[in-house]
Amino acid sequence: MNEKQADILITNGIVLTMDTQNRQINHGAVAVRGEQIIALGTASDFADWNAARILDAQGGIIMPGLVNTHTHAAMTLFRGLTDDLPLMTWLHEHIFPAEAKLNRHKVYTGTMLACAEMILSGTTCFCDMYLFEGAVAFAAKDVGMRAVVGEVLFDFPSPNYGPILLGFAYTRELIRHWKNDPLITIAVEPHSPYLCEPRLLQTAAKIAQEYDLPMVIHLSETQSEVAQIREKYGKTPVAHLADLGILAPNLLACHCVVLTDEDIALLKQYDVKVAHNPESNMKLASGIAPIPELLKAGISVGLGTDGCSSNNNLDMFGEMNTAAKLHKVSTLDPTVMDAQTVLRMATIEGAKALRLDKIIGSLEPGKCADMIILDTRKPHLTPMYHPMSHLVYAARGGDVATSIINGRIVMENRRLLSIDLESVMAEAKQLAKEFKAYQ
Amino acid sequence: MNEKQADILITNGIVLTMDTQNRQINHGAVAVRGEQIIALGTASDFADWNAARILDAQGGIIMPGLVNTHTHAAMTLFRGLTDDLPLMTWLHEHIFPAEAKLNRHKVYTGTMLACAEMILSGTTCFCDMYLFEGAVAFAAKDVGMRAVVGEVLFDFPSPNYGPILLGFAYTRELIRHWKNDPLITIAVEPHSPYLCEPRLLQTAAKIAQEYDLPMVIHLSETQSEVAQIREKYGKTPVAHLADLGILAPNLLACHCVVLTDEDIALLKQYDVKVAHNPESNMKLASGIAPIPELLKAGISVGLGTDGCSSNNNLDMFGEMNTAAKLHKVSTLDPTVMDAQTVLRMATIEGAKALRLDKIIGSLEPGKCADMIILDTRKPHLTPMYHPMSHLVYAARGGDVATSIINGRIVMENRRLLSIDLESVMAEAKQLAKEFKAYQ
Repeated sequence: MNEKQADILITNGIVLTMDTQNRQINHGAVAVRGEQIIALGTASDFADWNAARILDAQGGIIMPGLVNTHTHAAMTLFRGLTDDLPLMTWLHEHIFPAEAKLNRHKVYTGTMLACAEMILSGTTCFCDMYLFEGAVAFAAKDVGMRAVVGEVLFDFPSPNYGPILLGFAYTRELIRHWKNDPLITIAVEPHSPYLCEPRLLQTAAKIAQEYDLPMVIHLSETQSEVAQIREKYGKTPVAHLADLGILAPNLLACHCVVLTDEDIALLKQYDVKVAHNPESNMKLASGIAPIPELLKAGISVGLGTDGCSSNNNLDMFGEMNTAAKLHKVSTLDPTVMDAQTVLRMATIEGAKALRLDKIIGSLEPGKCADMIILDTRKPHLTPMYHPMSHLVYAARGGDVATSIINGRIVMENRRLLSIDLESVMAEAKQLAKEFKAYQ
Repeated sequence: MNEKQADILITNGIVLTMDTQNRQINHGAVAVRGEQIIALGTASDFADWNAARILDAQGGIIMPGLVNTHTHAAMTLFRGLTDDLPLMTWLHEHIFPAEAKLNRHKVYTGTMLACAEMILSGTTCFCDMYLFEGAVAFAAKDVGMRAVVGEVLFDFPSPNYGPILLGFAYTRELIRHWKNDPLITIAVEPHSPYLCEPRLLQTAAKIAQEYDLPMVIHLSETQSEVAQIREKYGKTPVAHLADLGILAPNLLACHCVVLTDEDIALLKQYDVKVAHNPESNMKLASGIAPIPELLKAGISVGLGTDGCSSNNNLDMFGEMNTAAKLHKVSTLDPTVMDAQTVLRMATIEGAKALRLDKIIGSLEPGKCADMIILDTRKPHLTPMYHPMSHLVYAARGGDVATSIINGRIVMENRRLLSIDLESVMAEAKQLAKEFKAYQ
């Protein structure tokens, strides 16, 4: 094969690699062959290359696709169903009754809608926890998005699989079905220490270990959760998981809002990964996760949007902006969570949190071509002194023009190429009428 | 004149009036004649009307344009020049040296850029404080935006007018020039208690009173400001202004982050208005203004973005989203600052803060036609259970399709009609090279 031959050459942009040196290439270009990035450099380095497709970034930004480390994609269907309520009223009177009516079809539709929103706002990979996750995996695969998906496991019967023993069986079936898939990774996902008895948690951890897969859990999200676990087990949720032998490098702990110094030390000791969801934590009034302290301890922290009933959007640009600002005001220190730190959380550190950093999260030869192009010819991005500052403090999801996942162009100039958007939105509106009737 | 004759009929949308009853008209329409709204109702009410222009909202949202109660528009030129620095380093080593190089032309260009961004994100009226405000007024007027503008006054010499006596003269000249203008209101704008001696403040208040104009000031923005004023005058900044006889219904106090209970009582007693700038306060690590308490006290609070060097954007949708979420997490109460409260802050309460609520801020017959249409046919706005929830928690500035200010269509289907955007952006980029050279 000709060495200077690419399937796609993205050129005439500022390349932000997000590699270990945070290398920025002005007037840069990236060459893609098959599913992979094969070369990157200045645009002039590629003058004598041949490419089946040339994408002109028009002076914009070429960067890794964003990684959303925690969401419940199908909850797009409940976006704005109710807001501004006390947590328990919201859950028991609105969300749970609506969720009781879910099925595979509804979850597939809600996930398609979520994938459309995520691609349109620059996300190329997401980690999902919900019901009927087989439908989530199929939706992501149909759209061509990279996803880590796992059926939520808890002590009470599930509207999907019924009793927990069938939940483990469902998870094993997902694992078998999606083994070696280039886009879909299955995870084992017990809901939380407060909805899962120790035996459930330990069985889940055993399955994850058996297949060397990620395990995802909600952890220390609220003060009331911590109080409940302390009362039941006499220790914090993190210490409780440590005692059960579950803290491990493959564990992704979502939220981690209420932590003691000992909790942080434990998370570091066992190399547990953290998903930070600032907007959800704010909207639900859960609290502010001590992210600057986690980073100081050397813990890998990714960003997530959480589901659309507690945010209410999946825009990782908004999440970056909020994350950067929230911790400044929380610590009264304007130097914490600088733009580069936050941008790394949304890319390479998110990939690390999902244990996918060997294949995505930065633009480097040999990695999968998961990348986005931002159109910066907009008043709100003019002038541009520092691309990273703009990405965190000024850009919005709508500035992403083109998206490539695993070497496939899934959006070009804001047009989605792998989703029949009109049909998905029409179906979602139809389902919404039904959910509204149950309120 | 035919009573059923309109210049513009906006139809086929959900009309959010933001009037005292927060009336929502599904399948609604609004008729505009000249500069004014002349009627609104259901679309069928207008079946027999004639209109020179019919705008189809395509099922989207028709609502009052957003009111940005505090910004420094021309600071778009410094957007992202530097971030994530300690306040004094940022100001003294970066912002002040750049500002020393400003002139009328640069401020005009920066303001045009800001107006483009503001219209593209749904703002139809802004309140500005900066240098060379004559240029700001001309830019707003040229674009067709409604604006409250005032030259910043302080004790040291200004790059614009020189010594303070000429600052008062410059303000009086602005007042004379723009008297009775339908779009531009001049305000008297002393910077802050820490940059203005009592005599300056009192003279400014006298001028504002003489012409019955708004007075705008930065007030109690940071703990260090409060400490400084306490040391110098033995009281809080708010109490200091009360002693000087400056607290009054025409005073708009920007920020109000650090307040005592007595301060809040004083602001209420004198019917002072407040501009809340959550994103700037977060990014600069100033603190969290006690907005739920101010609202409880019955004080009028509008929203503002502040300037682009401390935010770094002028998107009021982002500001609404942040305001709603920040106070929930700050108070650990998910019911505070609900969507309707925040949306009122960005519309009618903002108009009140600027004393323009008799002419803008809600859609009512007889008011000026300052209004926007949002296109809701987007995945991130699907499904839609409650329009107000979407506007605060899910929509972005980019969802605004069309904007009308004072009866004139200034943007239609995302195309700016009153700004040569390419020229403005090219000029701003050119100026940025110069500012960068001074860093």
